[in-house]
Amino acid sequence: MAKLIKIAIDAMGGDFAPESEILGAISAYKNKNAEMDFEIVFVGIKDKIETFLKKTEVGDLKYSIFHADEVVEMTDDPSVALKTKKNSSLYKGLELLKNKEVDAFLSSGNTGAVMSTSTIMLGRIKGVSRPTIGTFFPAKQDKPVFILDVGATVDQKARFLLEYAVMGSIYYHQAYKVAKPKIGLLNVGEESSKGTDEIKNAYQLLKSSNLNFIGNVEGRDIFNATADVVVCDGFTGNIILKFAESFLGLLKHKIKNYSEKSLLNKLKVALLVPTLKDILTDLDYQQYGGVPLLGVNGIVIIGHGKSTPLAVQNMIFRAHEVIKLEIISKIESALNEQSNNK
Amino acid sequence: MAKLIKIAIDAMGGDFAPESEILGAISAYKNKNAEMDFEIVFVGIKDKIETFLKKTEVGDLKYSIFHADEVVEMTDDPSVALKTKKNSSLYKGLELLKNKEVDAFLSSGNTGAVMSTSTIMLGRIKGVSRPTIGTFFPAKQDKPVFILDVGATVDQKARFLLEYAVMGSIYYHQAYKVAKPKIGLLNVGEESSKGTDEIKNAYQLLKSSNLNFIGNVEGRDIFNATADVVVCDGFTGNIILKFAESFLGLLKHKIKNYSEKSLLNKLKVALLVPTLKDILTDLDYQQYGGVPLLGVNGIVIIGHGKSTPLAVQNMIFRAHEVIKLEIISKIESALNEQSNNK
Repeated sequence: MAKLIKIAIDAMGGDFAPESEILGAISAYKNKNAEMDFEIVFVGIKDKIETFLKKTEVGDLKYSIFHADEVVEMTDDPSVALKTKKNSSLYKGLELLKNKEVDAFLSSGNTGAVMSTSTIMLGRIKGVSRPTIGTFFPAKQDKPVFILDVGATVDQKARFLLEYAVMGSIYYHQAYKVAKPKIGLLNVGEESSKGTDEIKNAYQLLKSSNLNFIGNVEGRDIFNATADVVVCDGFTGNIILKFAESFLGLLKHKIKNYSEKSLLNKLKVALLVPTLKDILTDLDYQQYGGVPLLGVNGIVIIGHGKSTPLAVQNMIFRAHEVIKLEIISKIESALNEQSNNK
Repeated sequence: MAKLIKIAIDAMGGDFAPESEILGAISAYKNKNAEMDFEIVFVGIKDKIETFLKKTEVGDLKYSIFHADEVVEMTDDPSVALKTKKNSSLYKGLELLKNKEVDAFLSSGNTGAVMSTSTIMLGRIKGVSRPTIGTFFPAKQDKPVFILDVGATVDQKARFLLEYAVMGSIYYHQAYKVAKPKIGLLNVGEESSKGTDEIKNAYQLLKSSNLNFIGNVEGRDIFNATADVVVCDGFTGNIILKFAESFLGLLKHKIKNYSEKSLLNKLKVALLVPTLKDILTDLDYQQYGGVPLLGVNGIVIIGHGKSTPLAVQNMIFRAHEVIKLEIISKIESALNEQSNNK
């Protein structure tokens, strides 16, 4: 029998911790498919975790608690876990991962702190200049489009963009069984002469790589699914991600305004909302759960600060997938191949 | 009696020229309010314009035709009008503007060509390093949010961002009667330490300006209307603009998919669509018409390549507004004041 997969969860990270984390784990166990099995290690303040667990129907979930009595706050400087909070759930959770006591670590806490602490504690995969986080965007195809980087690094360097493309290609290939994912470089026009100097250099690097590079893609190509994987600097990616997440809010606002104009409008909206909710399901970030921090020596899944139980459930499924697919060793050999290729 | 306002339209620019341009002008004349009056000069190939005019109900529109027998194509290099197509509708139209034979020039043609030809033929306003184009985004307030630059310049320079803020503030103030428009700097976080070096420098320049600078804003703040005017480099702005324009396409796609799943869904969608259309009216770029090229010595309104008659009508209204509000002289004095302030 295979060794049971162990997933550590930062039970203190995120705006709704530990509730979302615990309910999400219970829900993941309930909704997992027959081939999946795992044990959860809740990392954090034992009392708080136990108090919530006592009043909750845990079902068949296999779990343990690993006590850590400090908390990295959302407002803390990213370096705080390494410098002054070595008893935090973030530090302790990553230590478990580093020591191979767990197979993956999940956190919806302070993203900057999770990224920098993971990078320093776990180290980078050979060939990676900067670890990166990507996000899945819904698109006009069955599969979502994967965009990276969405905020790990704000500096634009051609070399980073090539590495994102390699990591994104591997991940997309593994997760969606697409033989040669189409890679696009986010730019202001299709022509190779467009964009800043770093972007033009990135175009040439991508063109001479062994990736399935389809060229520059524009803002509209994301939803149009012109490419499966879109690479961009973390500045642009982060702004697009937060912008996209706010679209449903604008839609709700417009619907509310319309509804308040007359009684007839109110009725029309009442009829429309349930259908619209069905239609918009996969525009909801919760569906995609968290995203892996790609490029570090270990499986770290980063969630949204506002992660709900549904989002945490999907982060667990994501972690399980990354473990099973052996993404890390595959990224290492792809980067190796890329550099031998030159 | 005041001199009649004359507006030149590039009748060869845009994917649906000259139809959209002519129908848009007719519609503008029909829908103008009582205080507005203007004459249109259609610039382009006389035969083509006349042929379309002959089969169209022109109504009371006052117009003339200025013949120009070359056309700047969408695929032409931006420098083509200056180098090899001096008989183009773009060159001739700008010449009319330069010689003060018209008060404004409108084009939905090759944006790069319109920008560079305008900049060289009309010259920059004193104090402007780079002319800029902005776009209005719908938002959670009655007034839209004005974002600039959306593609004139892809290089990020702190100084450019300050100038965009000055021009954007003047324009927003004049167009929406907001005393001190709130200015936000688009960034990946609120703290002044966030972003690239140029962005950090821009933060400090904006902070020490006499603008109503509210600090950094993030992707989600655009629709949330945290600021009235959002400044960003043209790379990010262009990508966001094209990304935003594709939202409605994704929504339509999702609705279509849902509708095709069952007969019941088809019925639900049939009920939903008319209401949804009403609600989404002001998410449609046509409502905002074109945007002024700010920073050049003359009023140039740039339209979307796919401008419809409605969009052209609104471009004419936009031109009329910019003329009446004397935006150019106001930008010049604001930039002058800004530099005296230091």
